[in-house]
Amino acid sequence: MSNLPISADLIAEHNAKGLEALHEDYEALGRKLARTGIDIDAIKKRVAGFSVAVPSWGAGRGGTRFAKFPIPGEPTNIHEKLEDCSVINQLSTVTPRVSPHFPWDKVADYKALREEASELGLGWDAVNSNTFQDQVGQAHTYANGSLSSQDAGARQQAVEHNIECIEIGRQLGSTDLTVWVGDGTNFPGQQDFARSLDRYLDSAAQIYAALPGDWRMLLEHKMFEPAFYSTVISDWGSSILAAQTIGERCKCLVDLGHHAPNVNIEQIVARLHRFGKLGGFHFNDSKYGDDDLDSGSINPHQLFLVFNELAEAEANPRDGFNPSYMIDQSHNVTDPIESMLSSAEAITACFAKASLVDRAALHGAQEANDTMMAFQALRRAYNVDVAPILAMARVEAGGAIDVLAAYRASGYRARKAQERKAVGLGAGIV
Amino acid sequence: MSNLPISADLIAEHNAKGLEALHEDYEALGRKLARTGIDIDAIKKRVAGFSVAVPSWGAGRGGTRFAKFPIPGEPTNIHEKLEDCSVINQLSTVTPRVSPHFPWDKVADYKALREEASELGLGWDAVNSNTFQDQVGQAHTYANGSLSSQDAGARQQAVEHNIECIEIGRQLGSTDLTVWVGDGTNFPGQQDFARSLDRYLDSAAQIYAALPGDWRMLLEHKMFEPAFYSTVISDWGSSILAAQTIGERCKCLVDLGHHAPNVNIEQIVARLHRFGKLGGFHFNDSKYGDDDLDSGSINPHQLFLVFNELAEAEANPRDGFNPSYMIDQSHNVTDPIESMLSSAEAITACFAKASLVDRAALHGAQEANDTMMAFQALRRAYNVDVAPILAMARVEAGGAIDVLAAYRASGYRARKAQERKAVGLGAGIV
Amino acid sequence: MSNLPISADLIAEHNAKGLEALHEDYEALGRKLARTGIDIDAIKKRVAGFSVAVPSWGAGRGGTRFAKFPIPGEPTNIHEKLEDCSVINQLSTVTPRVSPHFPWDKVADYKALREEASELGLGWDAVNSNTFQDQVGQAHTYANGSLSSQDAGARQQAVEHNIECIEIGRQLGSTDLTVWVGDGTNFPGQQDFARSLDRYLDSAAQIYAALPGDWRMLLEHKMFEPAFYSTVISDWGSSILAAQTIGERCKCLVDLGHHAPNVNIEQIVARLHRFGKLGGFHFNDSKYGDDDLDSGSINPHQLFLVFNELAEAEANPRDGFNPSYMIDQSHNVTDPIESMLSSAEAITACFAKASLVDRAALHGAQEANDTMMAFQALRRAYNVDVAPILAMARVEAGGAIDVLAAYRASGYRARKAQERKAVGLGAGIV
Amino acid sequence: MSNLPISADLIAEHNAKGLEALHEDYEALGRKLARTGIDIDAIKKRVAGFSVAVPSWGAGRGGTRFAKFPIPGEPTNIHEKLEDCSVINQLSTVTPRVSPHFPWDKVADYKALREEASELGLGWDAVNSNTFQDQVGQAHTYANGSLSSQDAGARQQAVEHNIECIEIGRQLGSTDLTVWVGDGTNFPGQQDFARSLDRYLDSAAQIYAALPGDWRMLLEHKMFEPAFYSTVISDWGSSILAAQTIGERCKCLVDLGHHAPNVNIEQIVARLHRFGKLGGFHFNDSKYGDDDLDSGSINPHQLFLVFNELAEAEANPRDGFNPSYMIDQSHNVTDPIESMLSSAEAITACFAKASLVDRAALHGAQEANDTMMAFQALRRAYNVDVAPILAMARVEAGGAIDVLAAYRASGYRARKAQERKAVGLGAGIV
Repeated sequence: MSNLPISADLIAEHNAKGLEALHEDYEALGRKLARTGIDIDAIKKRVAGFSVAVPSWGAGRGGTRFAKFPIPGEPTNIHEKLEDCSVINQLSTVTPRVSPHFPWDKVADYKALREEASELGLGWDAVNSNTFQDQVGQAHTYANGSLSSQDAGARQQAVEHNIECIEIGRQLGSTDLTVWVGDGTNFPGQQDFARSLDRYLDSAAQIYAALPGDWRMLLEHKMFEPAFYSTVISDWGSSILAAQTIGERCKCLVDLGHHAPNVNIEQIVARLHRFGKLGGFHFNDSKYGDDDLDSGSINPHQLFLVFNELAEAEANPRDGFNPSYMIDQSHNVTDPIESMLSSAEAITACFAKASLVDRAALHGAQEANDTMMAFQALRRAYNVDVAPILAMARVEAGGAIDVLAAYRASGYRARKAQERKAVGLGAGIV
Repeated sequence: MSNLPISADLIAEHNAKGLEALHEDYEALGRKLARTGIDIDAIKKRVAGFSVAVPSWGAGRGGTRFAKFPIPGEPTNIHEKLEDCSVINQLSTVTPRVSPHFPWDKVADYKALREEASELGLGWDAVNSNTFQDQVGQAHTYANGSLSSQDAGARQQAVEHNIECIEIGRQLGSTDLTVWVGDGTNFPGQQDFARSLDRYLDSAAQIYAALPGDWRMLLEHKMFEPAFYSTVISDWGSSILAAQTIGERCKCLVDLGHHAPNVNIEQIVARLHRFGKLGGFHFNDSKYGDDDLDSGSINPHQLFLVFNELAEAEANPRDGFNPSYMIDQSHNVTDPIESMLSSAEAITACFAKASLVDRAALHGAQEANDTMMAFQALRRAYNVDVAPILAMARVEAGGAIDVLAAYRASGYRARKAQERKAVGLGAGIV
Repeated sequence: MSNLPISADLIAEHNAKGLEALHEDYEALGRKLARTGIDIDAIKKRVAGFSVAVPSWGAGRGGTRFAKFPIPGEPTNIHEKLEDCSVINQLSTVTPRVSPHFPWDKVADYKALREEASELGLGWDAVNSNTFQDQVGQAHTYANGSLSSQDAGARQQAVEHNIECIEIGRQLGSTDLTVWVGDGTNFPGQQDFARSLDRYLDSAAQIYAALPGDWRMLLEHKMFEPAFYSTVISDWGSSILAAQTIGERCKCLVDLGHHAPNVNIEQIVARLHRFGKLGGFHFNDSKYGDDDLDSGSINPHQLFLVFNELAEAEANPRDGFNPSYMIDQSHNVTDPIESMLSSAEAITACFAKASLVDRAALHGAQEANDTMMAFQALRRAYNVDVAPILAMARVEAGGAIDVLAAYRASGYRARKAQERKAVGLGAGIV
Repeated sequence: MSNLPISADLIAEHNAKGLEALHEDYEALGRKLARTGIDIDAIKKRVAGFSVAVPSWGAGRGGTRFAKFPIPGEPTNIHEKLEDCSVINQLSTVTPRVSPHFPWDKVADYKALREEASELGLGWDAVNSNTFQDQVGQAHTYANGSLSSQDAGARQQAVEHNIECIEIGRQLGSTDLTVWVGDGTNFPGQQDFARSLDRYLDSAAQIYAALPGDWRMLLEHKMFEPAFYSTVISDWGSSILAAQTIGERCKCLVDLGHHAPNVNIEQIVARLHRFGKLGGFHFNDSKYGDDDLDSGSINPHQLFLVFNELAEAEANPRDGFNPSYMIDQSHNVTDPIESMLSSAEAITACFAKASLVDRAALHGAQEANDTMMAFQALRRAYNVDVAPILAMARVEAGGAIDVLAAYRASGYRARKAQERKAVGLGAGIV
């Protein structure tokens, strides 16, 4: 960690101004929590052990099919993206891992890349394959699908790409492969639902066969987009049946924006855990579809309820509990570093609030059919302003009290705008 | 069948007026279909073999939580309901079975009831249990759930009620038990998602253990209502995992109105078939939620796409194909007999159209990634006006060419308005 | 106020136990807010001036079309309902008005009823008419609509009923008439969209003509239910066009559960205010449709965003700002008094949080296109735990620190279960 | 029309094979319709008078934010796009106008472009402005909005661009300007809802002031995308209030994919007409959001119900009836020419079916509250297979009996794949 982009002095200087107020707030909250039998330091310790990965591609400004509006100083390669991710982790102290995406993050020497990340205080999370776009010079098009394509060549190419991703991941130190495919249809009749799934399962089995013994394969479902009539792994039902078919270490990954309107996502989390297939999360938020908005910006209560299920599952693991957490957002209108700082805080806050739930009171009320008190057990925890706990944990780990203010004070982006080449106009996430 | 409510003479007289036109239309359509290699008589024969059950409760006017507006001549007991169902079957010839609901249809002598139905030309379909309402004098309330209740007494009572339904069904000649529960929550935290499901599965296993060897148990999922935050069997994912857990002869039943907005129901049908768990349907239509509108009245194309999957499944049965079909609608603003006549025709029309799909052309286009021609293979079949085929099949089976006109000509409802006692005001489906 | 149902001693005794902790929390929060320039006492004073009406019918246990599960001690007439509403107001101190519903709350002597309420510390809010259900002995049915019915007799009857509601309201001291109709259709073609609206507007104009000069007429739109294909006033667009047509003092009322999925309700609030037609609210919460769940129980952030728009409108009133606030919930699984206590607190909390928003900072960030800081201006206020402010305001007004605990300690419901007659089974809200 | 891309001989040759069958089907349908008093030739004449514009950009393969998959022979400039549009019109005979989009379709000489189109048998429909993307070298960014931007320079630039579009449109012979903006927000608080609308209305008024006296300005609303928390003109309510504010010749345009889930679009059409603001349509279809799928491919019944309202409005014009019709689709997985041929047929079929509705029977049933017969009046028309009417109208106008088969027989695309330069990979619609 010799190459950290933000100087420790700057952080210390920033913190100095807020430390007294932080201690006052932390102590006041500590007294309040103590009245209900909660030790604030124990919660702080739990928070200090929490982390969430950031996606390499999230460091760049995102876009829609209509347009992308780049900002000065955006990263354009994995090296610059790692540097930005390091800033996020330095200030927030909860994002020590980066999730790479191939072929976007391809380099010649992965050993060197691993080293480079390590110097920036970063490790590696799940590897993401990409079979939803054609790359220049690619032998077979994914225009008609990838793992489920009618075209055996396209399927084989997609399988091989995933196996290559595993190989790269081994070099980087990852242990999860996340598989999301854009496969699906825009017209009734375009593909046969059952035969498409047969092909998907067959291809997925080939990838699974190449999975190292300590790896997991995470299936990510999505209701729609880029396909608009059907998708091959459209919902958690399809995902879990596929994971059951593929194998023991094949699990399901929940992206908060990939569901039908109104769906109870926290119940899906509980169902996946109940049947031993909860593998991980892509955190973001949405109002209409897969909006990829900042985590907790639209419905923070839903995020809390998800973490409440995770806390429940952790306490009652049944067949194990080891979900992988990642932010997966498209930062179309903000500085991506700021959005990930803000999102990491929102996610950690929900983790902390879920830790405050009095589970004995909750279970007691549930068993007594005391609906109001069961609800209040959650609501009491949700209402707590946990900011002092998070800030104190950050300070103790070398991070910033106010992550956004410290980032702005650093002048990091303006510096990068001088150093980095400009990004062109365009659309989408390419 | 000595007690049919509509005289054969009336039907014959009605048909006489339209027979010439029917023959002309049938022949013209026959020539048109012949050009694409389809034998209209073969389709007519397939249609003649099709049937769908009607629910006993559907014969009464339905309502909402706000109000019910009864009509003169409504049936108020199972005997009157059977008579009305007999009218529907006489005219439509495609609804020869009634699906009873207990305790609503309880009588002292089920052997006599079976005989009574038989005299009306009717058999019996799946038996429906009711654990979503309390009955006067009931020992344990379902206010906090039934099969999944925290209260062991309520669970036991619900299990026993289902076993009693099986026993009644055996006497009537049914071979399916349909289980829908209203169990769920209105508040986050009200119940533990996993423990609720544990209890549901335990209770369901007890019912399944009492199932005769030639019976099936059909699980019906529903996203919401009467519970508005979560339901224990909320979607097809929960339903199929439950069915897998419960046993081989436990299958999933799809009600077209029980899904999240925008969900691709035809794909769910294909998924359930693909994994050997497609048990049956409750046909209706909806625009907003579980609206229980007349089948095909809002989205007839979706109904066709569902039948297209059924035709595909029938042709490629994998582990078998034997879905049970039932209408399940709430007739709030029409004469229920008219709505079921119209709905039975809409359902049969979609069955007929799905039979017209050129599957070789469809599969060929799918395999060639010829999206437009795959879509057109479905669209060509959907666009055919199959009314002459249906009418001809009805005439040959003793039914009416124009079911609604024949019904109106019969004066049946006005007669019943004289004979039957009036129904009071109120709300809901009680 | 000589007849208050809860003794002041009980409340004082309850408060005594929590007062020290409350002062500690209030002071800690005060110091924290002071750091950002906010005077906690000023906020407390604002909160002390806030109130929201409760609906008379909300005091009874609600139900769905499937069932109602009554509880012992439920009120069955307006006198018992007033007593329950008085309990809510005594403990919460923010619900000093009751919104009556006719014919449900009809009595012989409204002067006496007004007096009775006054003795209980209660005044009267908007009067609600009911033309969505038939009453026994009614001359014209509303089966085919009321204000928009094809039947001139039904329309006239509905107009006269609304005018009678105004007359009753004058005697009670109300100044608003809320008009919600169930008019709509279940089938395409059932009614002509334009002619139905013509009739609605004509009927509404007759009601408006009878409105006293200091009254307002509030139109409440609803997307669906009891009609499931279309409703005559389905959305805010129809509502505001109708209000514009009807007259100056005709305004729009927003019920949080009456919208299409995903709709941005806070923007609708801003739009109605922008065009001078924001009349009032029916507060509740929902996950799927018009679920009528407890306010803030599902999406408290949305409730905050609504209040943020209200705070913005109050600060920038354009053509005036005078919305009427009412709780409108169906308490199907809780004690209605507890739900309204909890809901009143959730609503008041959002009002308080919206009062904490630094509007200068918000506007500055908006004008600078500093998206992140504009968002953080709202988020900072949302994250504050305002419970001490609310509790202190209550204590100073004679209410309870912990409204639910005080209510449970009072034994009120158990007492009423001894005194009041039992409610029968049934469905719906009749 | 000296430059038509498909030879008349090819069309004639293609038609020769199907003419006998067409006559047989047309006559059979004619006899059937005659029985209900409908003259098939009158309907054919009405169909012959129907037309719908195609968008220039629709001739290219569309994409999503994830990817675009180009096909050989795609057009890359307005000249090639016009040629493709000419093919569509030649074969379908119902798409004689092209809707241009600027700056995408900019050329040096619009007089020449108009001439060029004329030679291809094409005229010009509504002009579309583009202020949702930045163009290289643009002075002010639209990253923070255009007509509603905080930045006066961006607003002015957007206003001037729209006025330039009007000027180009005058040269081409257009008389409508369609204004859709991507303006909106991704975060609560990002912009003030009321002030954003104020700015939008102010900018729009400047454009309106530049509108020639015989032109209309069409406002297109959209619920979400590219903005995912709010959009400035999000629904028909915002649209009609804006149109009322802007002026008499400002109308609302309905895109079928721009609504919240479940919304009753045909009722919105009726409402806009009822209040004198129905300006036009962008036809497409969708299952989840703004999917831009082929018209009628997902929900053909909804398309029919929309046309039923248009037929009703035409018969009862109140303050006039003159909607502008355009296809607006994204052809991501098909040959765009084939999709537009298929879509034009689907749209025309719904127009024809709506013309078959027996309005006297419909109105009679509506007035008698005969819900079932009112519904059946629509359903009878919907069920008619109108293909022979459309084909006969096409043949008589020089088009093809089977538009897709004729197109494929022409070898047009393969020829263009030889002539035209290849399109690169990328995402979105840029």
